[in-house]
Amino acid sequence: MAAPADAEAVGSAFITYYYQLFEANRPALATLYQDASMLTFEGQKFMGTQAIMGKLSLLQFGACKIHLSSKDFQPSVSGGILVFVTGNIQLENEAALLKFSQVFHLMPFSNSFVVTNDMFRLNYA
Amino acid sequence: MAAPADAEAVGSAFITYYYQLFEANRPALATLYQDASMLTFEGQKFMGTQAIMGKLSLLQFGACKIHLSSKDFQPSVSGGILVFVTGNIQLENEAALLKFSQVFHLMPFSNSFVVTNDMFRLNYA
Repeated sequence: MAAPADAEAVGSAFITYYYQLFEANRPALATLYQDASMLTFEGQKFMGTQAIMGKLSLLQFGACKIHLSSKDFQPSVSGGILVFVTGNIQLENEAALLKFSQVFHLMPFSNSFVVTNDMFRLNYA
Repeated sequence: MAAPADAEAVGSAFITYYYQLFEANRPALATLYQDASMLTFEGQKFMGTQAIMGKLSLLQFGACKIHLSSKDFQPSVSGGILVFVTGNIQLENEAALLKFSQVFHLMPFSNSFVVTNDMFRLNYA
């Protein structure tokens, strides 16, 4: 059995990469999902890279900046990593910030990690 | 291999039970954790039932009411269930609501489920 991944180091690197792509090159997020990956976005459920990318490409927020307020990481019993972030989304040309929180479960795959679970919620005031 | 648990049904029952105890009988939450359970509470890390219960017993909020705004559930690859909630904490004798979000990873254990991972964040305005 492989040594448990360093949740903090892997998780930090993951979210830096993920939100860079989310802000500036959203179609490239496809490489992080697989056919069994699940996304629940504001309660709507999607499964598989194609369905997930379909949703992510249709989000109201196009170009945006993500500002993270908190980042938490824990190893999971399955050898994966749980990632939990809270933060704000700043839309292009708008002053208002959308507060959100998001959870990822990452699993090792082919010398890297894939997102097996993704849950996203806007935190309305 | 056992059939995957019904994430929605198990997760819903879990959070109803969990927050009832959190509101009114916090010491009884001890039965939901194990020695390998992890809690990250506002960035502070605790491992094992004893350390986790030590933290939960010392929270600033004593008697309180939890109002959930959203509840999301997904099965995890390990046969567990991921639970993600957002909501408000109403402190006794105070009008202000504290917004929070929380993540649990539940794993089957002895015909029930235990919390292997727990991450909690207040969402400051």
